[in-house]
Amino acid sequence: MAYDPDNIFAKILRGEANAHVVLDEEHCFAFMDLMPQSPGHTLIIPREPAENIFDLSDEGLAHLTATTRRVARAVKTALNPAGLMIAQLNGVDAGQTVFHIHFHVIPRYAGEGLTFHARTMADADELAANAARIRAALAP
Amino acid sequence: MAYDPDNIFAKILRGEANAHVVLDEEHCFAFMDLMPQSPGHTLIIPREPAENIFDLSDEGLAHLTATTRRVARAVKTALNPAGLMIAQLNGVDAGQTVFHIHFHVIPRYAGEGLTFHARTMADADELAANAARIRAALAP
Repeated sequence: MAYDPDNIFAKILRGEANAHVVLDEEHCFAFMDLMPQSPGHTLIIPREPAENIFDLSDEGLAHLTATTRRVARAVKTALNPAGLMIAQLNGVDAGQTVFHIHFHVIPRYAGEGLTFHARTMADADELAANAARIRAALAP
Repeated sequence: MAYDPDNIFAKILRGEANAHVVLDEEHCFAFMDLMPQSPGHTLIIPREPAENIFDLSDEGLAHLTATTRRVARAVKTALNPAGLMIAQLNGVDAGQTVFHIHFHVIPRYAGEGLTFHARTMADADELAANAARIRAALAP
């Protein structure tokens, strides 16, 4: 499948769609998942147009994974979850719903399960508040 | 929590425990998950002793993620799944069961759900056969 430049994450990168932004840098961009599996669920994407992990350049993968760890650390600092899951889905049959590669950082809280992905929209104020806390934890 | 050098993956790295090996290199090692979430479920670990993603060196993370992609490509070539999930769990509350960092490569097959992790031991012959197919796909 060819990369579709009209996917929602490409629109966010071009400023044509809004997001609760956590990080905005040369190579990567991060923002809150609108339908989080847990509070603080954050997505990290490359600016490079790539549908999945197989299409990304070597340099792009290195930037994306290093940035994913930085964001994961910030989510840990900001929200103090008991655990943290990193996930990356390739293909409809793996649960991929937007066809611009993204890493999920999903905080896990003791005794709390995960909600199903992409089913329920989170409260915008809560997303904005979590984004602000994670941005603060990312600040130098 | 300090790194426990007696965890099962450390034993596999030292040759004190067996595994269905897929890749054995300077920086990383990969083998079949004994309790796979789907057929072909493979684990990639660094030789560097690190409990989770936060403890790994920058160089170690770069090697581990690049190797994870190579293994994911080989799993895709060898088993032709419809999709492929990459996951990395940090902390008991995120589902981490072995405290040496590992990336999961989990093939997804059309219409088939995932089994729960770490519940059911797979057939050794099936694991050996999948490991052989993935090794063949990794061969230069």
